[in-house]
Amino acid sequence: MASEFMAYLDKSKAIGNALALIHWDMSTGAPPGGIPARAKTFGILAEEQFTLAVSGKMQEFLQAPQEGLDELERVSMRESQKFYDSWKNIPPEDIGKYNELLGNSQSVWEKAKAESDFASFAPALEQIIQWQRRFATLRGVSGNPYDALLDDYESGMTTEKLDAFFSQLKKTIVPLVQEISEKGKKFDASFAKRPVPAETQKKISKLLMDRLGFDFKCGMIRESVHPFTTNFSKGDVRITTNYHENDFLSSFYSVLHETGHALYEQNIGDEVAETILGKGASMSIHESQSRFYENVIGRSREFWESVYGSVIALLGKEFSDVTAEDLYFASNQAKPSLIRIESDELTYSLHIMVRYEMEKEIIINGRPVAELPALWNEKMREYLGLTPPDDAHGILQDVHWSQGSFGYFPSYALGNAYAAQFLHFMKKDIPVFELVKKGDLKPITQWLTSKIHMHGALKTPEEIVVGATGEPLDASYFTNYLESKFRAICLQ
Amino acid sequence: MASEFMAYLDKSKAIGNALALIHWDMSTGAPPGGIPARAKTFGILAEEQFTLAVSGKMQEFLQAPQEGLDELERVSMRESQKFYDSWKNIPPEDIGKYNELLGNSQSVWEKAKAESDFASFAPALEQIIQWQRRFATLRGVSGNPYDALLDDYESGMTTEKLDAFFSQLKKTIVPLVQEISEKGKKFDASFAKRPVPAETQKKISKLLMDRLGFDFKCGMIRESVHPFTTNFSKGDVRITTNYHENDFLSSFYSVLHETGHALYEQNIGDEVAETILGKGASMSIHESQSRFYENVIGRSREFWESVYGSVIALLGKEFSDVTAEDLYFASNQAKPSLIRIESDELTYSLHIMVRYEMEKEIIINGRPVAELPALWNEKMREYLGLTPPDDAHGILQDVHWSQGSFGYFPSYALGNAYAAQFLHFMKKDIPVFELVKKGDLKPITQWLTSKIHMHGALKTPEEIVVGATGEPLDASYFTNYLESKFRAICLQ
Repeated sequence: MASEFMAYLDKSKAIGNALALIHWDMSTGAPPGGIPARAKTFGILAEEQFTLAVSGKMQEFLQAPQEGLDELERVSMRESQKFYDSWKNIPPEDIGKYNELLGNSQSVWEKAKAESDFASFAPALEQIIQWQRRFATLRGVSGNPYDALLDDYESGMTTEKLDAFFSQLKKTIVPLVQEISEKGKKFDASFAKRPVPAETQKKISKLLMDRLGFDFKCGMIRESVHPFTTNFSKGDVRITTNYHENDFLSSFYSVLHETGHALYEQNIGDEVAETILGKGASMSIHESQSRFYENVIGRSREFWESVYGSVIALLGKEFSDVTAEDLYFASNQAKPSLIRIESDELTYSLHIMVRYEMEKEIIINGRPVAELPALWNEKMREYLGLTPPDDAHGILQDVHWSQGSFGYFPSYALGNAYAAQFLHFMKKDIPVFELVKKGDLKPITQWLTSKIHMHGALKTPEEIVVGATGEPLDASYFTNYLESKFRAICLQ
Repeated sequence: MASEFMAYLDKSKAIGNALALIHWDMSTGAPPGGIPARAKTFGILAEEQFTLAVSGKMQEFLQAPQEGLDELERVSMRESQKFYDSWKNIPPEDIGKYNELLGNSQSVWEKAKAESDFASFAPALEQIIQWQRRFATLRGVSGNPYDALLDDYESGMTTEKLDAFFSQLKKTIVPLVQEISEKGKKFDASFAKRPVPAETQKKISKLLMDRLGFDFKCGMIRESVHPFTTNFSKGDVRITTNYHENDFLSSFYSVLHETGHALYEQNIGDEVAETILGKGASMSIHESQSRFYENVIGRSREFWESVYGSVIALLGKEFSDVTAEDLYFASNQAKPSLIRIESDELTYSLHIMVRYEMEKEIIINGRPVAELPALWNEKMREYLGLTPPDDAHGILQDVHWSQGSFGYFPSYALGNAYAAQFLHFMKKDIPVFELVKKGDLKPITQWLTSKIHMHGALKTPEEIVVGATGEPLDASYFTNYLESKFRAICLQ
């Protein structure tokens, strides 16, 4: 029975792989003429996968006597049960229709963003939100539909818990940003806008991925409008980036970020990797890894010292006046800005708060789509003191909503907090920044692999963080990290 | 019921699209580490698709009263019935295992070919052949297992019919090749081996695809070891080529060939395109289109006259001594050679006969795999008078067997014959080569679209050829075409 159940889940995994490949393909160059047919295929396969998860057959498996299961089978059963309980009231046809809509929406968003035209994305967004609210309401147990969505990305997460979490972050970040804006040191980072051809940036990507230990026999990098990571097995993990000629640091940090995700997937234990648990413990834990490599390592002075020579050699003589220290400061300008994925570590969480507030308005309060751009700009002024010049630099900047990912953004902020906590305890075991300075990241990745990566989703986020650090998540590691880092850089 | 049946077939189409995308992906750069997991996914999805086609549900559909069906539903029902009858005795698990094997085999073949090491491909080939013979025997009605395989690519085709067809071709081709080798004019085509960088060849590909009318909004070109065409809808049709720096004509004709396939798919009627009948009437009819554009048009004097200026401009000053006439002759050297896809129109069919003889030995007579390289070389000596220097230039040159495509090769020769017959009748309607000379291929493609492309698989090969030419297939159009073309080029 157990092996029959695992074979049944293999089917779901196979369809999931096909869906991921369609998504990869449509994001990395598929011709526009194929969108409607591809969206239809996407809808049909998503419906098939969903049907497997809520079928009578699944119910049989879940009700069968569960004795003699090994850990993999037991956790697979528990996760299947959780999904079944949460989604069993949703008709599979709805999932098919909804996913066909998503299959069409990403390119609608891409075009709307390119033309900074929110109105052309609004009808698709409107429909996605209607489905999201419908699903959330049908699934919701706490009475708060947003909680159902949060729970998809971080098991047990609620609006109440997040409100408290963000309020704690705010207490440190808001006055610190204020203080830095008033009396912080001013850097001239204009060199970072000097043109760097995509071909050069591609070589930098390769250099960074090699440095972090990305295995190119088991993965690759391509380009897409919005950077992302996907995988079809631990032997095939793919990341994308987006090269901006006048902002090479944008792709630089995207690549570090996505490679962080990729290392997680490449290092999942063999026995777990090709099952439905061959993925991150949660989105937040996944983000903790991407943001650990991007920020904790990638935005450290020691990292810049170690890659400086190779990067400057690639950037060429136009950058010969730039020092490692310049690059370190340019990567850590604590300054409110418009684009989340290009923002610094300190103000980053404010971007997430804007999105979190927006999503609560949308999902809980049903704010009409037409009002969203104005609301976005209002929140940006409130949290970051800036008004976007257009929707491309405002509400349209991120791909997530076009993919139906509501409730995902908080994972980024939680990921930052997890990352800081991991760093605190990792430093007790190994000399983290000495290693970074030497360019030897292996012991760091080994630490993360043994405590986090190898387990895949066999452990819950709480089990992971307690296993790795001996404590549950505590945001003060992150606020302390920010205080100490940014006071040193900007105020001393 | 009819609409329920069509929705059921949509599911099969969606899984088929996913399988085609996996195949595309693995042929165009997927990392090697992902092969085993991808092969497993491939096997599971293939089994799912097969199960749909032979399920109890399918049987119900087929047994339901079939009244009030439109043509699309009627033909879909007929094709489903045919597949069901032929395959119902094969256990779906076998299809899963077999396709997992195929998912692994293509890269085994790629490596074996690169290293010219037949022994490393032999175990995979051995297993594929065992499955093929097993399926053919379980399905075979005529007592000849190879007939079941031939029928997959050309409905109603048998070994008996093909023996007669090839014997007719031989009667013209063998003495003509002999006569040309004895007293044919000698051309110096060594210029065709001058180096042409891949970047230049890419521009030539684009030029040719534009010239033929390929719609880049609804398709694209990439590179793979073996050129092929695939599609996910008429809005997303993809071809590949393979650039050889010292043989630019190789990719030149691959691109014309694959674009011929692609035009067929891009021009299928909208109402048929996204159903299971949205494909060619048969592999032979499909090959008739690829070989029509590659050979009938692409190897004509008029085509070279019309593209000469643009191609020479791209080739650059190293080719400034080359005339359109030189290119025409270089593309029509009637001379036995080792590689099928690079061979001339006259000797091409001899390559197909070698493969046909090989497949009969393998499928009907069960010739052991270890004996195949020697048998291949023997047949090459018999038909073409040449001995391959190694297996990469011999038995390993083609991808087909690694994909389980036994019975496919004869489609190429049949395609040539169909193409010549279409040309004969097209010339009665429009001034074919005057148009080619002017570079105006639209009326030619319109003729082919209205008689062939638009119908997809709604008509049988016989209905297509009779509809287009008023007669069933007659190989003498092809033998006459070869006689008149190659006598003019080589013997006058």
